[in-house]
Amino acid sequence: MTDQDQERMRAYLRKGAGFVPQLSVDCVIFTYHEQQLKVLLVQPMGLGTWALPGGFVAQQQDVEAAAAETLRERTGLREVPLHLFGVFGKADRQTQDAQRAFFLAQGMEAHEFEWLMKRYVSIGYYALVQHVTEAADGSPLADEVMWQDVYSLPPLAFDHADMVNQALETLRTHIDQQVAQSRLLPEPFTMNALQTLYETILNRPLRRNNFQRRMLGLGTLERMEKLFTGGAHKAPFLYRFL
Amino acid sequence: MTDQDQERMRAYLRKGAGFVPQLSVDCVIFTYHEQQLKVLLVQPMGLGTWALPGGFVAQQQDVEAAAAETLRERTGLREVPLHLFGVFGKADRQTQDAQRAFFLAQGMEAHEFEWLMKRYVSIGYYALVQHVTEAADGSPLADEVMWQDVYSLPPLAFDHADMVNQALETLRTHIDQQVAQSRLLPEPFTMNALQTLYETILNRPLRRNNFQRRMLGLGTLERMEKLFTGGAHKAPFLYRFL
Repeated sequence: MTDQDQERMRAYLRKGAGFVPQLSVDCVIFTYHEQQLKVLLVQPMGLGTWALPGGFVAQQQDVEAAAAETLRERTGLREVPLHLFGVFGKADRQTQDAQRAFFLAQGMEAHEFEWLMKRYVSIGYYALVQHVTEAADGSPLADEVMWQDVYSLPPLAFDHADMVNQALETLRTHIDQQVAQSRLLPEPFTMNALQTLYETILNRPLRRNNFQRRMLGLGTLERMEKLFTGGAHKAPFLYRFL
Repeated sequence: MTDQDQERMRAYLRKGAGFVPQLSVDCVIFTYHEQQLKVLLVQPMGLGTWALPGGFVAQQQDVEAAAAETLRERTGLREVPLHLFGVFGKADRQTQDAQRAFFLAQGMEAHEFEWLMKRYVSIGYYALVQHVTEAADGSPLADEVMWQDVYSLPPLAFDHADMVNQALETLRTHIDQQVAQSRLLPEPFTMNALQTLYETILNRPLRRNNFQRRMLGLGTLERMEKLFTGGAHKAPFLYRFL
């Protein structure tokens, strides 16, 4: 770690006094890319472990705004529609030991991160967003950020693997609404492409006829007019979300 | 307020140091009684305003366990299946002024409730339960507890009216699951009784044919065999949840 990095970390730790004590936020951001459901991971400077983008809540800051701000700071993502999915409030939720080892290894002194050495209650938010590899301002997502297939995650810090699983369950419960709102598929798309997206999120095969009937019954899809081309009679119908 | 009540309140306030700072829990408990959707309200000793049953989280206590415990302490209800529905985390969420006025009026001194004079983030849980008027141990619910029609609530403390509304929206989103699990209706019941329950929760009329088709499509209902009686051919079918 460079002197400059150390100073940045010290400056961050000094902010501790301005945070709501023992409260944190964590974000599980899903996307769909190359027919995989992926989740956004970060590797905080020098931690050596992948983690969810997360942070703390300033005394003057709304909790949800803190989640959006920490996501922007750590990954460059902006204007993500965050949804509450869980509160991680077990009394024995352990984050202190790993943090202590990490800060000591970075040359910090115990008094500098004393405020972190307590039980933390974390508020979990999730979102399903279009795949991006650069921030809204055109700058690339930070080096230490990656999209990773949710079904083959590396070891994650703290209880972040549990958070991903719980967010995924919530996403599955709200799949119709989330898929319709997230515009993950380039429009227009085939029913087959939509089914593959659903199967990837649900992680199980669906029956084609049932799926098509159910999707059309939701009333959220518009079927496009077919164009006359040479092979038009064989071309599948195309759809877009209303 | 009697001396004894004051001493009880002082003892409670002294516990403040053992709580997770700036964190609270609130419970929105719904029931269905006399064809009304009702919510459980409490009037904390001397507050003079109805409020949701709520409290704080001890440092050694899980957040969800704290919600269950505060519900038991304040209302006598036990073993209620609590579901997270919201986090009330606005930075300008105001609870201090009302609390200060209340404690001063009760003869407390400012230093005794200093820990409460901060911004609080509240975790909201809801449940849909069978109507009861006594606690599980047979004792009546406390005097200062009442079930109140959700559509004609009295003024509530703090932002508790918002909490009720948000919990109600969540209940509506999960109505099929909640109604099936909560066993609100004595079984067996008619489709008509079930429709009235749904209409009360949703606060809008439903079309009978659509409702019946949708409910049967869920696969959660069992239709009972009709018994032969004098008027059996006119009797409606009876159902129970599987």
